[in-house]
Amino acid sequence: MTQSVVTLAGGVGAAKLLTGLIRVHPPGDLLAAVNTADDTVLHGLHVSPDLDTVVYTLAGAVNPDTGWGLAGETWQAMDALDRYGGITWFRLGDRDLATHLYRTHRLGQGADLATITAEITSAWGLELTVLPVTNDRIETRVTTVDEGEIGFQDYFVRRRHEVAVSAVRVAGSKQAQPAPGLVDALGRARLIVIAPSNPIVSIGPVLEVPGVRQAVAARRDDVVAVSPIVGGAALKGPADRLMRELGHECSVVGVARLYRDVAATLVIDEIDAHLANDVEAVGLSCVVAPTIMDDIESATALARIVLGCSANGVQV
Amino acid sequence: MTQSVVTLAGGVGAAKLLTGLIRVHPPGDLLAAVNTADDTVLHGLHVSPDLDTVVYTLAGAVNPDTGWGLAGETWQAMDALDRYGGITWFRLGDRDLATHLYRTHRLGQGADLATITAEITSAWGLELTVLPVTNDRIETRVTTVDEGEIGFQDYFVRRRHEVAVSAVRVAGSKQAQPAPGLVDALGRARLIVIAPSNPIVSIGPVLEVPGVRQAVAARRDDVVAVSPIVGGAALKGPADRLMRELGHECSVVGVARLYRDVAATLVIDEIDAHLANDVEAVGLSCVVAPTIMDDIESATALARIVLGCSANGVQV
Repeated sequence: MTQSVVTLAGGVGAAKLLTGLIRVHPPGDLLAAVNTADDTVLHGLHVSPDLDTVVYTLAGAVNPDTGWGLAGETWQAMDALDRYGGITWFRLGDRDLATHLYRTHRLGQGADLATITAEITSAWGLELTVLPVTNDRIETRVTTVDEGEIGFQDYFVRRRHEVAVSAVRVAGSKQAQPAPGLVDALGRARLIVIAPSNPIVSIGPVLEVPGVRQAVAARRDDVVAVSPIVGGAALKGPADRLMRELGHECSVVGVARLYRDVAATLVIDEIDAHLANDVEAVGLSCVVAPTIMDDIESATALARIVLGCSANGVQV
Repeated sequence: MTQSVVTLAGGVGAAKLLTGLIRVHPPGDLLAAVNTADDTVLHGLHVSPDLDTVVYTLAGAVNPDTGWGLAGETWQAMDALDRYGGITWFRLGDRDLATHLYRTHRLGQGADLATITAEITSAWGLELTVLPVTNDRIETRVTTVDEGEIGFQDYFVRRRHEVAVSAVRVAGSKQAQPAPGLVDALGRARLIVIAPSNPIVSIGPVLEVPGVRQAVAARRDDVVAVSPIVGGAALKGPADRLMRELGHECSVVGVARLYRDVAATLVIDEIDAHLANDVEAVGLSCVVAPTIMDDIESATALARIVLGCSANGVQV
């Protein structure tokens, strides 16, 4: 794989930035390395929330109200599952189910997740490469203050990330291999982008797959991160609360500290402009820009700024 | 289990007779022992077609046009699966999917199929006991003349049972245990009914589970079978063709020969009245009655006749 731009990606925030990137850069020259540590098996089906959010969003098929799932979805299966008292707190729409049916079927045939993801990406007509960070099973486990360790979706969806957390680990990460071609792609890329995803539970697991953090750190000068923390808060999800609970400063400075070994540049929002010097004091170049992507224009503008951070001149 | 009436059941024909039986006999005093050899794993989901047909039919929820699946079903998941080139020849409706999601989830938790089936039956508000003939995996395998051995649903659904067959076997049957309580129930029942299901691929696998044929044969005097062959043809499905291809006479006499060791009485349709003596020559008492169940009244009337065959006076 020889894409010029490799993006380390979680779910919604990464997907939005990628929608901008595919508009300002040839999609075939983009690779998204996506977190799979929040994958889960539900009803026997292998669900890959971040992979699906990226694909559905780039295909223009995502539910715009939630940022995940499909627009115009129906819920017959979940409604019927209520009759049995089945698991319905993790909502799988009828059309979304097809993705999990297909993925599970192909895994059962022995295909690996990267191959299956390429098939799914292609079926949606996308030209960029969407790659799970690993074909192996990795799994974010969250230690809650009140209930001990639980699975990530138990924390994120079932408990709506409203419980206090004392630790996060990525089970299976030590034994995992990076997806075929990923380390090589990181070595060849002209620019590596760390998307504005949760640093703890989205980007964290991506970097924890053996070989990935080292490969990114080796390219530190060509790595630009976009802060998911804006004005001291996460735009979506529990990144802010998790950072605080795990002892990090919940600010763009805290983000800079988390990424200082792997990224040379941090893009922060204009609202945080007063913290630019503090970010630079951590050892990163700081770019101030509008980072809130509430429409395609703002996502495209941010993508242009990110690509402009390339020391190697990625063409915009 | 001490139900007075135990019915050996396949899918559609059995389900229709059972709709009659629950109207003329207390449902709580009925047990249906259902074929599971046409169960299949699709997309990682455990699908039990005969169990579901019996439950959906008795719940009044079955699709009346097909005899399987749910009335008013939607097909979003299958339509979406087409995008991926997934398996869509076996149609799983959106609401029907919930049953397979629940069953697969519970199996994954370690629950056995009989327990799960009881939960599903109860969720639909049914009082009769629906019991898979075994909790173990048994699987009808069909040797086709042109393609060798294939799975049952490959034969039945995908090829629409339009191919020539030279042999049928039930994989796993030698190692299977009858469902807990089934042999005992067969020993205690006042009447055992063999439903008008396919003798080769529905009733055959039920009898092939070790201990079941012996338990039924030991009660032969109290066993009444309803012929699924009417006027030399199956009302539905490939029973007629399969019987011929496997060397059986495709008539009520052929049915009588298949069941002579396990049933004392055969109910045949009025159209076959001229064969009653031939049936009796095989060694079964022959009851002539209208056996085509095209509405609830005809199913109820047939159920009354079947119960009337009891030497032990099951109350109608």
